[in-house]
Amino acid sequence: MLVDPAPRSVSSLFTPAHLRELESLVHLVPADQIEEHLPSLTYVMGQTDLDRSRLERAGKLKAIFNVEGNFLPNIDYEYCFERGIHVLNISPVFAQAVAELGLGMALDLARGITRSHGQFRTGEEVYGLESNQRMFTIAGRTMGLIGLGDLGTALLRLLKPFRGRLLVHDPWIPAGIIEEAGAEPVELEYLLKNSHLLFVTASVTSENEGFLGRKHFNLLQEDAIFVLLSRAAVVDFDELTRAATGGRIRVATDVFPREPLPPDHPIRKADNALLSAHRAGALEEVFFLMGQYILDDLRLMNRGLPPRRCKRAERETVGRLRSNPVLKS
Amino acid sequence: MLVDPAPRSVSSLFTPAHLRELESLVHLVPADQIEEHLPSLTYVMGQTDLDRSRLERAGKLKAIFNVEGNFLPNIDYEYCFERGIHVLNISPVFAQAVAELGLGMALDLARGITRSHGQFRTGEEVYGLESNQRMFTIAGRTMGLIGLGDLGTALLRLLKPFRGRLLVHDPWIPAGIIEEAGAEPVELEYLLKNSHLLFVTASVTSENEGFLGRKHFNLLQEDAIFVLLSRAAVVDFDELTRAATGGRIRVATDVFPREPLPPDHPIRKADNALLSAHRAGALEEVFFLMGQYILDDLRLMNRGLPPRRCKRAERETVGRLRSNPVLKS
Amino acid sequence: MLVDPAPRSVSSLFTPAHLRELESLVHLVPADQIEEHLPSLTYVMGQTDLDRSRLERAGKLKAIFNVEGNFLPNIDYEYCFERGIHVLNISPVFAQAVAELGLGMALDLARGITRSHGQFRTGEEVYGLESNQRMFTIAGRTMGLIGLGDLGTALLRLLKPFRGRLLVHDPWIPAGIIEEAGAEPVELEYLLKNSHLLFVTASVTSENEGFLGRKHFNLLQEDAIFVLLSRAAVVDFDELTRAATGGRIRVATDVFPREPLPPDHPIRKADNALLSAHRAGALEEVFFLMGQYILDDLRLMNRGLPPRRCKRAERETVGRLRSNPVLKS
Amino acid sequence: MLVDPAPRSVSSLFTPAHLRELESLVHLVPADQIEEHLPSLTYVMGQTDLDRSRLERAGKLKAIFNVEGNFLPNIDYEYCFERGIHVLNISPVFAQAVAELGLGMALDLARGITRSHGQFRTGEEVYGLESNQRMFTIAGRTMGLIGLGDLGTALLRLLKPFRGRLLVHDPWIPAGIIEEAGAEPVELEYLLKNSHLLFVTASVTSENEGFLGRKHFNLLQEDAIFVLLSRAAVVDFDELTRAATGGRIRVATDVFPREPLPPDHPIRKADNALLSAHRAGALEEVFFLMGQYILDDLRLMNRGLPPRRCKRAERETVGRLRSNPVLKS
Repeated sequence: MLVDPAPRSVSSLFTPAHLRELESLVHLVPADQIEEHLPSLTYVMGQTDLDRSRLERAGKLKAIFNVEGNFLPNIDYEYCFERGIHVLNISPVFAQAVAELGLGMALDLARGITRSHGQFRTGEEVYGLESNQRMFTIAGRTMGLIGLGDLGTALLRLLKPFRGRLLVHDPWIPAGIIEEAGAEPVELEYLLKNSHLLFVTASVTSENEGFLGRKHFNLLQEDAIFVLLSRAAVVDFDELTRAATGGRIRVATDVFPREPLPPDHPIRKADNALLSAHRAGALEEVFFLMGQYILDDLRLMNRGLPPRRCKRAERETVGRLRSNPVLKS
Repeated sequence: MLVDPAPRSVSSLFTPAHLRELESLVHLVPADQIEEHLPSLTYVMGQTDLDRSRLERAGKLKAIFNVEGNFLPNIDYEYCFERGIHVLNISPVFAQAVAELGLGMALDLARGITRSHGQFRTGEEVYGLESNQRMFTIAGRTMGLIGLGDLGTALLRLLKPFRGRLLVHDPWIPAGIIEEAGAEPVELEYLLKNSHLLFVTASVTSENEGFLGRKHFNLLQEDAIFVLLSRAAVVDFDELTRAATGGRIRVATDVFPREPLPPDHPIRKADNALLSAHRAGALEEVFFLMGQYILDDLRLMNRGLPPRRCKRAERETVGRLRSNPVLKS
Repeated sequence: MLVDPAPRSVSSLFTPAHLRELESLVHLVPADQIEEHLPSLTYVMGQTDLDRSRLERAGKLKAIFNVEGNFLPNIDYEYCFERGIHVLNISPVFAQAVAELGLGMALDLARGITRSHGQFRTGEEVYGLESNQRMFTIAGRTMGLIGLGDLGTALLRLLKPFRGRLLVHDPWIPAGIIEEAGAEPVELEYLLKNSHLLFVTASVTSENEGFLGRKHFNLLQEDAIFVLLSRAAVVDFDELTRAATGGRIRVATDVFPREPLPPDHPIRKADNALLSAHRAGALEEVFFLMGQYILDDLRLMNRGLPPRRCKRAERETVGRLRSNPVLKS
Repeated sequence: MLVDPAPRSVSSLFTPAHLRELESLVHLVPADQIEEHLPSLTYVMGQTDLDRSRLERAGKLKAIFNVEGNFLPNIDYEYCFERGIHVLNISPVFAQAVAELGLGMALDLARGITRSHGQFRTGEEVYGLESNQRMFTIAGRTMGLIGLGDLGTALLRLLKPFRGRLLVHDPWIPAGIIEEAGAEPVELEYLLKNSHLLFVTASVTSENEGFLGRKHFNLLQEDAIFVLLSRAAVVDFDELTRAATGGRIRVATDVFPREPLPPDHPIRKADNALLSAHRAGALEEVFFLMGQYILDDLRLMNRGLPPRRCKRAERETVGRLRSNPVLKS
C-alpha cells in the first residue's frame, strides 16, 4: 500500500493498535517510492496523482483511499471504473461528529446558551422568563434538512426524539427513500417557508454552488434558525451575513468562504450569528475512525468482497462534486 | 375556581383561547374573595394558604393546582388526602424544555461551542483539529442520569439516538422501571466513575440536600461533563465551583444557591463552567403549557375522572420535597 | 402479610428466589388466620373480603395487593382512600404479553399464516402470489387502538416500526398524552372508518359494556383486521361473530363471553376468525412478574415511599371498572 | 426500454398510473424485437440473455433491471462493469414483507397461535395458563440474525421494541456496521448457542450452501425458535426436518428445497414446524413496489445520476450469488 496521506499523517489516522493491524495486512510503501512500486501496488492511501499512465503500470491496484473526504480531479476516474479499481473516500466518518455539532448549535440559538453565558462574565445576566424572550424549545417544531447524505441521515436520527415534522429537500434522492428515513420529501421553497430550524448538509456540486441566496433567506420565518454545516460555497455568504446581522433570523455556521476568516468580516459582529471555526468534523477520534474504516474495507477487499465503509466514487457524480483540497488538518 | 397564581399571572398561563375555554368551564373568583366563596369553590389555582379550617369550609373542593412546580407547606395535605382533594402541581410541563437545555449545554462543553464563538469576536479563533484538543463526540459515550422523574425521562429520550450506555441512579424507583425505560440501574458511585456525561435531574428532598460533594466530584473521570439541571441545593456548590475551576472536569449549571448570583462568585470566572441563569424551564411556551395541563385535568375531573397531566401530591413524599418558593417568574 | 392469592398460588406468583426475598421482608400469615392477625397486618395479598369492620381493626395496614388484575367490590374502598391504604392490582404485568399476542394475531390475519399452514397438512397448499390474494403488509397501514392504558401503550411501542398512522380513541385520556405517545387522538367513528388494523385494548367499565356493535362493524373497511384483546363484554359478541362469518372483515379474539366457549358457538366455524383461548396473558413468566411487582412495591413502601409498579385503585374510577372474578388461573 | 419481464407481467409490476408514467419516460419495446432495437436501447427490463455480442451492439444501454430478485449467469457482467452499464435487481422490495412474515411466524411459535386456533375447530381448546406450557414472550429475549442485508435490516427494525439482545452474524459486513445498526456482531456458534429466536436471512452464495446442519441445530437451546426466511439451500433441510420433528426446537420456514413440496415430505407432519408456501414476498403490493423502484431509478438515470433503489450487481459478488430462477410468480 502506498502511503501518501498528506496533509494528514499516518499517526493521526491510525492508533498504534490499528497501525500494527494495517502493517500485518499490507506492506507500506512511502509516497516518494511510487514509481518503482507501481507494478506491485494493491492499495493507495492518499491524494496521489494517478493519471492513466501510472494506473496502467499499477496492474494490481484494487483501491485508492482518499483520506480527505472529497474526490480530486488528479485521478483518471474513467480508467479506474473500467478496471474496477475502487476510488474511496472516508467522508462518512464525519457524519456523526458534524451532526452533533449541528444539533448543539441549533439548541444554542434556540435557547441563547452562548449569549447567556457571556452575560455572566460581565455580571449582566438576566434570570428566568425575562431572559427567554423569543427563545423556544425544539420539540414539535418543523425541521428542514437540505441534503440527505451521510450527514443528513445522522442528523435526522438525532432530531427524531424531538417529534417535530421533518422535511427533507434532496433532488438526488427519490421520495421513497426520504419517506423510509422517516421524513417528508419537499421542494426547497416549501422547506424554507415552513421550517423553524434548517440544516444545510448538502455537498457542493457543480450545480448547487451559491444556490442559497437573498431570496431564499427572505422566505425564512422570523426567528428561524439556519445552520450551515457542509460547505460555505453552497450559500451566498454575503447575503447570509446580512441576514444574520438584520436579526430576523439566527445563523450558525461552521464553514466560511475563506478560512481563516478575514479579521474585519462583518459576520464576526453579527448579533444573531454563532460561529465555529471549521471544527465540526476535525476531532482526533474522527481521524482515528478514518483508519478504522480503511482497515474494515481493506479486510473486505483482501477477502474478495466489495468495500462497505468508505464512500465510492461513482461514474455519474464524481465529476460534479466540488470541494477544495484540504490545506491543513 | 379561585384564581391566585401569584407570582405568575393568568395571562402568562393561559393563551386568550385557553382563557376563554377556562371561563366556559368554571367561574373565576379573585384571590381576595376567598373567604366568601369557600363553600362553593370547586378548584383553587395558586399557592393559596389552605389550612384545615379553610378546607373544612370548602366542602366542594376537588383540586388545588399549584402553578409553581413545588408543594409548599401552607396546605393541610393530610386533610386533602382524607377528603380526596387532589393537590396538583404543573412541574411536568418543564421536563422537555429543561431536557433540551441540558443536552444543549452538554454538547456545548463536549465541543467547545461557546468558547470557539467567543474567539471569533476577538479574532483569535483556531481552525480545525488544533482547536479540538480534548473535544469529543457524545455518540457511544456512557451517560449517567441522577434521577429519573419527568425531567430524567425526557432527557433519556433525547440521549437514546447517541447510542451510548445509559446509566440511571434513582433510589426512589425500582430497577425494573429503569430497565424498561432503556437504561441500566446503578449505584451512585458506579455512575460517577463510569459516566462521560452526567446529568443531575433529581428533585431536592429532605434526604438529598447537598448530597453531591467533593468526594463525588473526585470520582469523575478527567474531562467528564457534569450538568446540573434540577436544584443547586442537591450539590455542595462551593465544591462544584472548585471542580470547575480546576479544569479536570467541565461543569454546566442552570441553577445557583443564590439567584442572582453574587457578582464576585468565583464560578463566574471558572474556565470550565458554562452558566445559564435559571432559564431552562421559564419559557413563554412552557407557561402556556401550564394552562393547557390545568385545562386537561379540569375537563377530566368535571367528568368524574382522575387528573392525568399534573403531578399529584402523595402522602408519602409531599413532606419530603424541598423547594424554595418562586419569587419571580 | 396476609397470603390469600386464590385462585392463584404463592408458588405460581413467586419464584423460589423471590419467595425467599418476600419472607425476608414480611412475615407471611395464612388466609384463614386473618381475624387474629388483623391488628398487626401491614399488607394483604389476595382478594380477601375487607369490609369496614375488618379494615378498622387492621390499623397498620398499608396496602392490599389484588393478584387478579381487577378491583372487586368486596373491599371498602372509600375507607381505604381515607386512611391512605393503597389498593393495588398487578394488571400492568399483562401488558407486554397481551400486546405481543395481539401483534402476532394481526400479522397472522394480514398474511394468512394459520390458514396456509393448515393447507400443508392436507397437501393443498398454494405457492407464491396466488396464495396471497387479499393479503397485505402492515407497513404504512393505519392502525387504530381503542384504549391507551398499559396494554395499549405496550402495543403502540410494538407497532411504531411499521411506520403507519397510529390512531387512538380513549375518552379517559387528554389528547396531549396521546400525542406525546406518538399517536393521533381521534373519535371512535373516525378510527373505525380509517383503520386497516384495529385493536381493542380498553377495560370494561360501567359505561362501555357492549359499546361496539353492528353499526360499528359496518363502518370498518373491507379486509380490516379487528383484534379483541381486553374483554369480550366490550363488544356485542353475536354481531362480531356475524361480521367474522360474513368475510368482509377479519377478526381475532382472545376472549369470549363465556369460557369455555359452547361447543356449537358459530364463531368456531367462521372463516375469517382467529381464535385464542384466553391465553394472551396467562404465561408462567407473567405470573412470576406479579411476584416481582409485589416485591418492588413492598420494598418501596417499607422505605416509606409510594408504590410504583402495581396499579392503584382510584376514588373516581374504582366503582366504574367491571370485570369478572378470575375463576381459574 | 426492452420489456421482457417473464415470468412476471408488466401489469403485475406497474399500476396503471405507474405504467403511464413509465411510458412517458421511455419507449417500450417488446422482448421479441430485441435484435432490431439493440442500437437504440437505453434500458432492459427482464431476464433477457445479454452476451457480449448483444451488449456490444447496445451502445446506448445504461441499465438492466432484473425483476426477479437475483442475478442470473446469462449476462456478460464483466463487460457491463467495464462499460458502466448498471445491472440491477429489485430484491430490496421484498425486505419489509418478508420481515413481517418472519416476525409473525416467530410470534406464532412463541405463543402457539396456530395450534390453539386449530383446537377450537375440534372443540379441544384449553384455556389460560394450562394451554401456555413452554410458551414465552419475545420481550427481553436474545434474538439472532444470520445475515444483515436488506431483509435482516428490515427485521432488525421490527425486533427493536422487544428490547432483547440483538445478535448478528454476517461475515460479509464489518463489525462497525452491525454495531451502528444497533446489534452485536458475533460468531455463528455464539449466536446459535445464545439466541432464543433465530432468523436466517442470508442469501445463498457459493460459500454457504447447506452451511447450517445437524451440528448447528444441536447447539440451539431447548424451545429455541428457528425461522428460515431466505433460501432453503442455506440449510441441510433433512436435518432441519429432523430437528423440528424431535420437538426440542421449533421451526418456521417459508422456503423448501423443492416447491411444491412432495406430498409425503415428513416436515408436513412435524409437530414443531410452522409451514408457509413461499408466500413471504409474493404480494401484489410488493410487485407494484418493483415498478415503483424501477421508475425511481429510471428518473435518476435519466438525469445523469446513479440508481439508488434497486440493488446493483457488483464485480466481487455477482459470481458468488446462487439462486434459482423464478419459475412462476
